[in-house]
Amino acid sequence: MAEKTIGILGGMGPEATLDLFGKIIANTPAARDQDHLRVVIDSNPQVPDRTAAIFKEGESPVPAMKAGIAALKRAGADFVVIPCVSAHFFLDELQREAGLPILSMFDVTAEHIRQHHAHIRTVAMLATTGTIKGGRFRAKLEQSGIATLTPEGPDQERVMAAIYAIKGAAGARDREAIGAEIRAIAGRLVRRGAQGVVAGCTEIPLVLQPGDLDVPVFDTLLLLARAAIAAAGKGLV
Amino acid sequence: MAEKTIGILGGMGPEATLDLFGKIIANTPAARDQDHLRVVIDSNPQVPDRTAAIFKEGESPVPAMKAGIAALKRAGADFVVIPCVSAHFFLDELQREAGLPILSMFDVTAEHIRQHHAHIRTVAMLATTGTIKGGRFRAKLEQSGIATLTPEGPDQERVMAAIYAIKGAAGARDREAIGAEIRAIAGRLVRRGAQGVVAGCTEIPLVLQPGDLDVPVFDTLLLLARAAIAAAGKGLV
Repeated sequence: MAEKTIGILGGMGPEATLDLFGKIIANTPAARDQDHLRVVIDSNPQVPDRTAAIFKEGESPVPAMKAGIAALKRAGADFVVIPCVSAHFFLDELQREAGLPILSMFDVTAEHIRQHHAHIRTVAMLATTGTIKGGRFRAKLEQSGIATLTPEGPDQERVMAAIYAIKGAAGARDREAIGAEIRAIAGRLVRRGAQGVVAGCTEIPLVLQPGDLDVPVFDTLLLLARAAIAAAGKGLV
Repeated sequence: MAEKTIGILGGMGPEATLDLFGKIIANTPAARDQDHLRVVIDSNPQVPDRTAAIFKEGESPVPAMKAGIAALKRAGADFVVIPCVSAHFFLDELQREAGLPILSMFDVTAEHIRQHHAHIRTVAMLATTGTIKGGRFRAKLEQSGIATLTPEGPDQERVMAAIYAIKGAAGARDREAIGAEIRAIAGRLVRRGAQGVVAGCTEIPLVLQPGDLDVPVFDTLLLLARAAIAAAGKGLV
């Protein structure tokens, strides 16, 4: 069976796009260039802010995202992945009109937890306020029998500020401080009963690694990378 | 003036493509996603081996590269950069037929050395045997008044083996050993009179950093990233 071409609808932000591309390369079994998969990327940072749009306080990102999917299709993509959890709020709308299948981070994450961590009944969600208030990631996990804990008011504001700070190219020292804050917030949710932490925004794994906490941390971008490689018809490293 | 969209003709190899994309992001002045440039990438690792083709021992990569440039054009690229020095052997042929301007690593490197290191008359070239025997990078530097020293026979074989080992996803420990070998080879060329070292293959900067030697190391991929940002109409960090 011919391998499929992965299309990355990127730019939301560019660094998460880079991170996903790197995770696809690192998780593909390859001994030479020609063993890798074809990946086409449209990294378009001009897509309007997703969280603002979820709150109906900003322009919809859907037209720009549709244009990006059309560009990926013209470039030869067989299916699409989107390295931005907040953007998944608009997935149903995009799926209907995009003309290419989209692999959902919500589905991939819920399936991974069910298959590999079947004992988990409650996870902590670290995500943009858009993702949290949008409620669609929570709904998908609930369908899979997984309840979601979210940071309390001021903690959620800190998570959101941290995400924008990372997007704003926070320096190495700032990143260390941001990481410490994120770990503390996650720790409070674990004490409230979370048996795992979902890094539910692509910026979070840049400051929170598996092993940083006593419970599993689910890097949704890594899960998406591995699912994309499998969907393209390759084994995994 | 509207900013231009950068097209990356990638996959030769995927890791160099990732590295270039990362260098474009890191060198773009940005405080939020929307400040970044649009970048479209076709990372197609099935492009035939460039060094084998230069020696007429393998299939030409030109048809696959032309198809990639056409895909980038359809996706909206305004100009093209190619994160593979060896592939630049075929640049004249591609420039004639591609339908999009291509920014040459040879030109960018020669101009950088002339503008910022005007005292340099001789550089060491660490590159694939295809790039060395192809002679076109050397010719471009010579036009700018810069002579090129290349590793002697067995050292050149070691450079080529190192490049393929890096492409083959050499582990961190292997990379350290490869880096030590590359530094030793570069050191011998400096003792023969090289006043700077051109990392003339995109895999070389992965194991040789500026500061590793007493003379400047020219990371051709970084120079290409910065030239692409400027060509797209942005300032630089």
